[in-house]
Amino acid sequence: MTIPLPENSPFRKFYAESYNINPDDYITLEYYFETDENPYEIAAHLCQEQSTAQWKRVDVDEDFREQFASKIISVERNTHSELFVDEENPGEEQESLKGWWVKIAYPHHNFGARIPNLMTALCGEGAFHSHGMKTIKLMDVHFPDSYLAQFEGPRFGTEGIREMLGVYDRPLTLGVIKPNIGLPSEPFAELGYKAWLGGLDIAKDDELLCDTPANPTEKRMTLLGNYRLKAEKETGKKKMYLANITDEVDRMFELYEMAQLKHVNAVMINGLTTGLSIVRVLGKKGQIPLFSHFDFIAPFTQKRRFGVHLRVVAKLQRLAGYDAQIYQGLGERMHTSVMDVLTSYQACVEPMGHLRPSLPVPGGSQWAGSFKTMFELFNSKDFAIVPGRAVFSHPMGPGAGAAALLQAWDALQKGVSIDEYAKTHVELQQAILANK
Amino acid sequence: MTIPLPENSPFRKFYAESYNINPDDYITLEYYFETDENPYEIAAHLCQEQSTAQWKRVDVDEDFREQFASKIISVERNTHSELFVDEENPGEEQESLKGWWVKIAYPHHNFGARIPNLMTALCGEGAFHSHGMKTIKLMDVHFPDSYLAQFEGPRFGTEGIREMLGVYDRPLTLGVIKPNIGLPSEPFAELGYKAWLGGLDIAKDDELLCDTPANPTEKRMTLLGNYRLKAEKETGKKKMYLANITDEVDRMFELYEMAQLKHVNAVMINGLTTGLSIVRVLGKKGQIPLFSHFDFIAPFTQKRRFGVHLRVVAKLQRLAGYDAQIYQGLGERMHTSVMDVLTSYQACVEPMGHLRPSLPVPGGSQWAGSFKTMFELFNSKDFAIVPGRAVFSHPMGPGAGAAALLQAWDALQKGVSIDEYAKTHVELQQAILANK
Repeated sequence: MTIPLPENSPFRKFYAESYNINPDDYITLEYYFETDENPYEIAAHLCQEQSTAQWKRVDVDEDFREQFASKIISVERNTHSELFVDEENPGEEQESLKGWWVKIAYPHHNFGARIPNLMTALCGEGAFHSHGMKTIKLMDVHFPDSYLAQFEGPRFGTEGIREMLGVYDRPLTLGVIKPNIGLPSEPFAELGYKAWLGGLDIAKDDELLCDTPANPTEKRMTLLGNYRLKAEKETGKKKMYLANITDEVDRMFELYEMAQLKHVNAVMINGLTTGLSIVRVLGKKGQIPLFSHFDFIAPFTQKRRFGVHLRVVAKLQRLAGYDAQIYQGLGERMHTSVMDVLTSYQACVEPMGHLRPSLPVPGGSQWAGSFKTMFELFNSKDFAIVPGRAVFSHPMGPGAGAAALLQAWDALQKGVSIDEYAKTHVELQQAILANK
Repeated sequence: MTIPLPENSPFRKFYAESYNINPDDYITLEYYFETDENPYEIAAHLCQEQSTAQWKRVDVDEDFREQFASKIISVERNTHSELFVDEENPGEEQESLKGWWVKIAYPHHNFGARIPNLMTALCGEGAFHSHGMKTIKLMDVHFPDSYLAQFEGPRFGTEGIREMLGVYDRPLTLGVIKPNIGLPSEPFAELGYKAWLGGLDIAKDDELLCDTPANPTEKRMTLLGNYRLKAEKETGKKKMYLANITDEVDRMFELYEMAQLKHVNAVMINGLTTGLSIVRVLGKKGQIPLFSHFDFIAPFTQKRRFGVHLRVVAKLQRLAGYDAQIYQGLGERMHTSVMDVLTSYQACVEPMGHLRPSLPVPGGSQWAGSFKTMFELFNSKDFAIVPGRAVFSHPMGPGAGAAALLQAWDALQKGVSIDEYAKTHVELQQAILANK
């Protein structure tokens, strides 16, 4: 690019045309920002803050920027206004057209294949405390295959989870066992068992449920692990129990091992509360699939023109090795635009070096009627639905709740409306009534 | 409180006067929120989402809310407008007076003394995806002593760090060795050594510097560990080298051990990128002090009426066991109000059960002239200053940069302006010129 800065500007050395960029050596970052100052200087300040804050010693003739600085590839007026759509604040989209979009090449040898240090480079002090920024959002990140080759990524991914369940031709169904907190282990486990019998693929712990006196993890794992085997025997279908092992990191190693001893065949980690690094470390063991949950993600993604974009989180989580990603889906309570639900989906499944796709699980108060919108949006069966109350508050019980989900999917495949299909399927009929 | 809801409202059971609250059993959360709906119902929705989302089974006469629900203590119009001051958006303070302030008692037996699960409860899906919330910010959290008793907290804290350095009568000085990235290990370590000779207490790695080929951690630790001993011998004063061990969590155990073998006597962890849990796990070893850095904190704290307040982070970091907290201090680039710098300071030092104070280290482009404002704000010497360029870009070298800091402090203690004091102290004079 032509650098719109004076020939003697000290900022010119943060622009890429001064360098011989080898794409294998650089991660590409895309930020949206707003400033009252010269955007070409402000973008250079950003590169300085996030890489070589000072690039030479006093009285020494050296300049570390060529090898170590992050470098601007382009600075342009933002044109991606569709990414800023906010149903609750309709001005955001229009406002974003006044902002800037900068692409930056960051030399990954500065930090290597380390998730915490990658996060420091992408969204640390450098990005959020750079001179002259009125607001800034990390919108996207792209990794060269050479960098991705150093990560293990998902060991199972969508395909591996499908194989474990023997289900290939439809979206998968998760059910969050509820009441989520307070119910003792035995009746809690029975609810999961009943839902499995009704056709549920994966019964799971709520993200708030952990190793508590009222429902201790070891007992819960023992009961649900055994119920899973029983349900498989009785239905002739494979089932999955997804146990929440979110805890202090040293304890998580123990819970990961305990899961397998107890016939638990998948674990959930609220990765932004534990750190994504422990996900990667456990993922290297590769014995059972890892599912994410989106706790503590909204506070830094929900603002349209500030923070970090949801699809960046999806990419980081895939890098960490999550086999499935439960993320903010459709619905008013999720505060997530349709576009963001879609681009996060894409971040889970699009080509990304040798990394397997993560199974996308967009969540948020789902029920049987949710399939249609999601299928139309993704144009694919490769996703999972994750209702809680729709299964476990079904007036006919959790088995009927699970059955209603499958009936709704069948209706969609047959091109029949769920209201029509419900006339001959009482579980679906009751689900529709309960959702009104 | 009188609950301003109809007698038959299902939300009444999320209010505290229905229950016998034992303060030992509850954490108190304070949220600011805005809504277009009935705030008393919206606050109850929040409790539901963040605790017992469903509190009974279908057809069973039970209600888990008494024991397991989070409960509203009060809902009032926000009156804490000073906490929303935003120099860049002067409307925030006024706007906040239209919002609401809810105090919630959360039964901590739901999650126990586990930092990740505590974070899920405080700022997970429940808080940020609750019905009817237009915006929400977790403003504060208070822990009963019974809960704090289950945490180890800082092993050294301010007092322990002072003892290691033998400095009791002034703020401590940290210096971020710069050029931060690109300089090979030997000249990098020499800079630290020179700064120590000039009077610096703590030489530290930049938060962006990690275990890279250009400056590998083991070599850096070896060199700076030895230089530290040499500087102590030559100056007769205790010194500290603060090594950044932020890395994947399994590697951090190794780096923590390596530090001690190499005479490194403190380590820094960018805790929100690694997860705070590994800080707690390493803190239990208790061999050397742990310093935080504020990477990845701004994206969820910088918005005044959304996210999580900075002092909540300070409290969580103290709970995790950080002996010192480097956080967003004063200055335009920090996007942090004076009030937030002060309340974060207080969160580091105020009484908190048996937990030792963390040494507060408010950062951000500091120099010799920064002491005055900070000392006046905190009315205490118990803090540290953390310049980078002010020490390592000093025209007379890092030793002079460090000396200028101490001269500025002496001037303040003698009631002399730094400009006056600089007439007889050339290092300070040069620092003032360089800062203009």
